[in-house]
Amino acid sequence: MIIILKENADAQQFATLEKWLTDRQMSLHVSKGSHRTILGLIGDTSALDVTLIQQMEIVEGIRRIQEPFKKANRKFHPLDTVIRVKDTVIGDGSCCIIAGPCSVETPEQILTVARSVKNSGAHILRGGAFKPRTSPYSFQGLRAAGIKMLLDAARETGLPVVTEIMDLSQLELFNDVDIIQVGARNMQNFELLHELGHTRKPILLKRGLANTYQELLMSAEHIMNAGNENIILCERGIRTFENHTRNTLDVSAVPALKSLSHLPVIIDPSHAAGIAAFVRPLSRAAVAVGADGLMIEVHNDPQHALCDGSQSLTMPDFAKVAGDIRRFASLRMELES
Amino acid sequence: MIIILKENADAQQFATLEKWLTDRQMSLHVSKGSHRTILGLIGDTSALDVTLIQQMEIVEGIRRIQEPFKKANRKFHPLDTVIRVKDTVIGDGSCCIIAGPCSVETPEQILTVARSVKNSGAHILRGGAFKPRTSPYSFQGLRAAGIKMLLDAARETGLPVVTEIMDLSQLELFNDVDIIQVGARNMQNFELLHELGHTRKPILLKRGLANTYQELLMSAEHIMNAGNENIILCERGIRTFENHTRNTLDVSAVPALKSLSHLPVIIDPSHAAGIAAFVRPLSRAAVAVGADGLMIEVHNDPQHALCDGSQSLTMPDFAKVAGDIRRFASLRMELES
Amino acid sequence: MIIILKENADAQQFATLEKWLTDRQMSLHVSKGSHRTILGLIGDTSALDVTLIQQMEIVEGIRRIQEPFKKANRKFHPLDTVIRVKDTVIGDGSCCIIAGPCSVETPEQILTVARSVKNSGAHILRGGAFKPRTSPYSFQGLRAAGIKMLLDAARETGLPVVTEIMDLSQLELFNDVDIIQVGARNMQNFELLHELGHTRKPILLKRGLANTYQELLMSAEHIMNAGNENIILCERGIRTFENHTRNTLDVSAVPALKSLSHLPVIIDPSHAAGIAAFVRPLSRAAVAVGADGLMIEVHNDPQHALCDGSQSLTMPDFAKVAGDIRRFASLRMELES
Amino acid sequence: MIIILKENADAQQFATLEKWLTDRQMSLHVSKGSHRTILGLIGDTSALDVTLIQQMEIVEGIRRIQEPFKKANRKFHPLDTVIRVKDTVIGDGSCCIIAGPCSVETPEQILTVARSVKNSGAHILRGGAFKPRTSPYSFQGLRAAGIKMLLDAARETGLPVVTEIMDLSQLELFNDVDIIQVGARNMQNFELLHELGHTRKPILLKRGLANTYQELLMSAEHIMNAGNENIILCERGIRTFENHTRNTLDVSAVPALKSLSHLPVIIDPSHAAGIAAFVRPLSRAAVAVGADGLMIEVHNDPQHALCDGSQSLTMPDFAKVAGDIRRFASLRMELES
Repeated sequence: MIIILKENADAQQFATLEKWLTDRQMSLHVSKGSHRTILGLIGDTSALDVTLIQQMEIVEGIRRIQEPFKKANRKFHPLDTVIRVKDTVIGDGSCCIIAGPCSVETPEQILTVARSVKNSGAHILRGGAFKPRTSPYSFQGLRAAGIKMLLDAARETGLPVVTEIMDLSQLELFNDVDIIQVGARNMQNFELLHELGHTRKPILLKRGLANTYQELLMSAEHIMNAGNENIILCERGIRTFENHTRNTLDVSAVPALKSLSHLPVIIDPSHAAGIAAFVRPLSRAAVAVGADGLMIEVHNDPQHALCDGSQSLTMPDFAKVAGDIRRFASLRMELES
Repeated sequence: MIIILKENADAQQFATLEKWLTDRQMSLHVSKGSHRTILGLIGDTSALDVTLIQQMEIVEGIRRIQEPFKKANRKFHPLDTVIRVKDTVIGDGSCCIIAGPCSVETPEQILTVARSVKNSGAHILRGGAFKPRTSPYSFQGLRAAGIKMLLDAARETGLPVVTEIMDLSQLELFNDVDIIQVGARNMQNFELLHELGHTRKPILLKRGLANTYQELLMSAEHIMNAGNENIILCERGIRTFENHTRNTLDVSAVPALKSLSHLPVIIDPSHAAGIAAFVRPLSRAAVAVGADGLMIEVHNDPQHALCDGSQSLTMPDFAKVAGDIRRFASLRMELES
Repeated sequence: MIIILKENADAQQFATLEKWLTDRQMSLHVSKGSHRTILGLIGDTSALDVTLIQQMEIVEGIRRIQEPFKKANRKFHPLDTVIRVKDTVIGDGSCCIIAGPCSVETPEQILTVARSVKNSGAHILRGGAFKPRTSPYSFQGLRAAGIKMLLDAARETGLPVVTEIMDLSQLELFNDVDIIQVGARNMQNFELLHELGHTRKPILLKRGLANTYQELLMSAEHIMNAGNENIILCERGIRTFENHTRNTLDVSAVPALKSLSHLPVIIDPSHAAGIAAFVRPLSRAAVAVGADGLMIEVHNDPQHALCDGSQSLTMPDFAKVAGDIRRFASLRMELES
Repeated sequence: MIIILKENADAQQFATLEKWLTDRQMSLHVSKGSHRTILGLIGDTSALDVTLIQQMEIVEGIRRIQEPFKKANRKFHPLDTVIRVKDTVIGDGSCCIIAGPCSVETPEQILTVARSVKNSGAHILRGGAFKPRTSPYSFQGLRAAGIKMLLDAARETGLPVVTEIMDLSQLELFNDVDIIQVGARNMQNFELLHELGHTRKPILLKRGLANTYQELLMSAEHIMNAGNENIILCERGIRTFENHTRNTLDVSAVPALKSLSHLPVIIDPSHAAGIAAFVRPLSRAAVAVGADGLMIEVHNDPQHALCDGSQSLTMPDFAKVAGDIRRFASLRMELES
């Protein structure tokens, strides 16, 4: 971090600032120019309150040099993190397909969808049991019973499963779940992140709807700092002024996050668009831009789905999209090799 | 809700849609024009999946007529909700002042600030014990010990207190807290909202940094639907493209929320601006626009605060701001009377 | 358009509204339910002031049924518009490549880049002569002299050219330009749009940095209504809270605009990202999502470019990106056939 | 400006960078730390391409120290700029009221409104003759005839006038206009700004709907750099995700712009809200936050206005708002004195 002092900074104030910084274990590198003095800080600046320093009377401005995240930082961990879940691999250059219904509704429904998406080429089964819903009058998910149905379908088909946790009181229900999802609305639920850092399960961490890349990586850092480094980042659309789509899919998140961090990045085109007809073109774009995987909503009967039917693909439509994904992924791998 | 059908809608598809709607307890009012047919839905449409209907083949479009919230809706509860906390009243036309440090740091610090803000005219003491921090390397709050120090300062000064809960596992620590705050990052932590609905304590519900008025009211509805109608809404700045201020204070939220809902609305100018020098003009604007209260960060020594010092007022500066608030509030009340 | 009246609407006010609407050439279709009355409007509602009606005392709400654009609307023109510029075609299912420097700097520079991008497979040459620059102290373009250099390079290479107009006083300089570009900052410069509607040249209309799909199509409508239907829409990134990239590329604009309109849609990944290293993955995504073309900045010496060097590709890097585009475009066409 | 080099920067690359910078008239202040080297640049850095430097191989990062605007910068011009228009003063600590219809419609309409707003205390008359409208099918203004009607009403009432220019071809029609308005959509129409810099008339420069404070000040700099320093900045609401109001009024723009610049700042609550009922509370907030003036839409018959009737106040309602403004302004001045 660099601190720029105002011209003719007062010596007494300078001494105070110097002490304040050394009290916080910073070494200082002072560079006096003809007009102004610049302080270079050496040490762990991640916990310094930048805006506070900025308001000290002798301070003209402040500039961060290093990203405030460490364990998630590619600079300190240049090799890609590769996550293994049963026979499936995420982050090795291939494109993993996660598919399933928004909500688990009945044992028959989840099993039907699981078998179908497996046949179409999905590697992991998704299905929600705890559902964050804007309205208290909407279907809130089958909760513990839903987890059980999902795990039964997993056993039957051999697919690993990912499902969302909404509160840490639910954690023991997730013992047999393969990947725990943290939803966009919980991306900064730090108590939850901290607790998930004590497990060793892969965490699928979704970007909040108005969170920056850096904030997403700081949330990953919360989990990693508590001990769990198995994190899959997920871009699922951000909130902008454009309301034609539910959210605005930010495909640049993939090259950006992969340059900043070593963690794998997947894309959820279903939540981003909110419109089933756009899932196919957005899935192609996601593969082309370099995503390590896709998470797609598929339902056996979208018009009767209890949740988010409008963005769900039918099982035959998913088969087509999965075919596209394979073709684009194989072109991508050919061009990279 | 109104459903507009495509021209020459197929009779078979129409029958299917009709059944789908009546299965969901809707009565239909069909209006056939020369060009197109319009369906008026009568019944509780709050749980219908709008986007799903929109994608049915015969549907041209859909338009909501009623807001999806009920208990928070001014239409069904025209009188202002007034919240009483000990001797303090929020929502009666006056302007309540909540003040205190971002974080509780020591027994002396919180007591010093409490006494000072009380002398300057604050009605309620704030102070954080559980702190949501973007970085795992920043100070996370004193937790249970902080709550205790805050309650001691409250007892000493006679001020009621408000402090933030981050997870429902912390709830029993809040037994003696007067108002429980739900922070912006937890505005859609529905498990937490639901549990707070089972208490009878006033809840200070902060708007999420990218949430609409309607979403804020839907979160209030989650709490109210579980049984607790004592809710204070709080505008604290939203995330926009402008980064000069930490957030963009949306003062229009006050007339907008008060026209949509009967709940009181306060403003937090400290978090909105992130810059201490802007707290004074924004506080004046907040009173002028009609806020039922303000929540302001005050610290005995902002340059050594463990959290958010840059937006905290010194105790003497707060005295000036509190004086302004009283003057503007009394002009406002005079003009309304 | 549908107008929903409040319960028990006053008969006198209803008569006033009825007259107000029929004065504006609307036919009314009145549908009285047990609770409320709904008016369906038949006629050209595009010029009605929606928010004004919304504030009439007896009006509960209002809902638009039709998009306010006509000539640009796919409903009234189901076939794709195909633009032909010399031997190049935009909008026929192929992917057109436009390339060249941000600014024309010298005759040698533009000719060098033109030859190189032609060899690498570009179909159209771009190069700015009039440059909208945030700062008055930055290079503002060579203006008339730049246009001349660009046209010389075009003649030499046989490539058609596109270049930006900033004010209608410049129009006569564009006589030999093949495609006139309207930049993002001028998307709602209606005087300019209207005048361009009197030419018959293809117009490349860039989306404003905070404009919706509908506003972009309304700006196209301004041009089309004045007589020129040769419009190419261009997504170039929108402004959001995320500042890591210069703008946020909204790839969903392609399927969205192509479903709403018959006009071709291209993508400018260079301005969207602002970072040369992201142009390659974003170009791949643009092709995969279905764009009719790409516009890419290429410079012979990006580190010495007078403008936007940081997002420009070197000529060898462009050759690689153009190769990628061809591979992805041919896969896309194979899957569509 | 500060450039941070990567660890172990290559000497040859360093020499190249050094030459590149000195070629651009920069003096360098090199500070070598144990880990990294930092370059301080002395000279006019406003025209340097920051992102280009950022991409040079040896560069780790770059930080701006100075704002890129000069003539508009308070640092170089500490005293408030005060604008005088006939007997009216803007920027001297009082609160100027500008009022009138969105569009000039007939000689009678503009004269009726002019007389009424003058009686209610307005200092300046507004009225649009050239109207930027999203739709080509909406009323576009009376153009030259409208300017004439406005000037007639001005003569009759003695009020100075402000009206919007949309294209520089219209400039000669503005000879007798007192203040020329540049609308939000033209804030970055640099050709227009440059030409207005050659006049000596006060320019009312509206903030673009997604432009930052810095960009607004850079647009002012374009005008000032061409010779005209009489600029009034205007905050009129920005585009955000919240659609309940037409735009989001950003009251923090007032203290922010006034700290960065010496130019006066006014607020337009009518365009910000888009809802007449919110104009009163937002006007109060605007005065309280410190605006140098307000611009308010008033119509003799809002329900029959040809443009933006929904946000216009009736003449009696404006009288009440103007009364509020005087009360709040006089309290503000009392507290400042």
